[in-house]
Amino acid sequence: MLFDVNVIIKLKGGMLSPEAKAISHALSSLGMKSEYLNTAKFFEIGIEAENADAAKAKAAEMCERLLANPVIHSYTIEVKKA
Amino acid sequence: MLFDVNVIIKLKGGMLSPEAKAISHALSSLGMKSEYLNTAKFFEIGIEAENADAAKAKAAEMCERLLANPVIHSYTIEVKKA
Repeated sequence: MLFDVNVIIKLKGGMLSPEAKAISHALSSLGMKSEYLNTAKFFEIGIEAENADAAKAKAAEMCERLLANPVIHSYTIEVKKA
Repeated sequence: MLFDVNVIIKLKGGMLSPEAKAISHALSSLGMKSEYLNTAKFFEIGIEAENADAAKAKAAEMCERLLANPVIHSYTIEVKKA
């Protein structure tokens, strides 16, 4: 069964993000204020698995082994039927 | 009122994504197959506005003027109460 898995990889709380700071500053320069701004990576992955739990486990393995750096990133996984 | 706005910026359909292709290939080399893989940028933005519609309009302006390139990107905005 094919599952459509959304993975969001964020910096862990307390990590400095120069990218977010730069974007926030640029928005402000254009007259658009934001109270806070965080950036993250978003992946849509099609995973073939027996059930939703197995798809989630496969996505978690992808995060641990390649997509995320467990030292600085946290990730959330959302599984939907494709 | 402070709103927590999630913005997802994707490449429009049909745009080639070398990044996604490279990640998909790397996952495959590690023995983790994906049927498809798309990458996107994810922003969590705190926006002060009178109501949810106004917050959404502000986020859309941010996308149009800075965050996205309307030629190659599409974006989705989700507004939640902070």
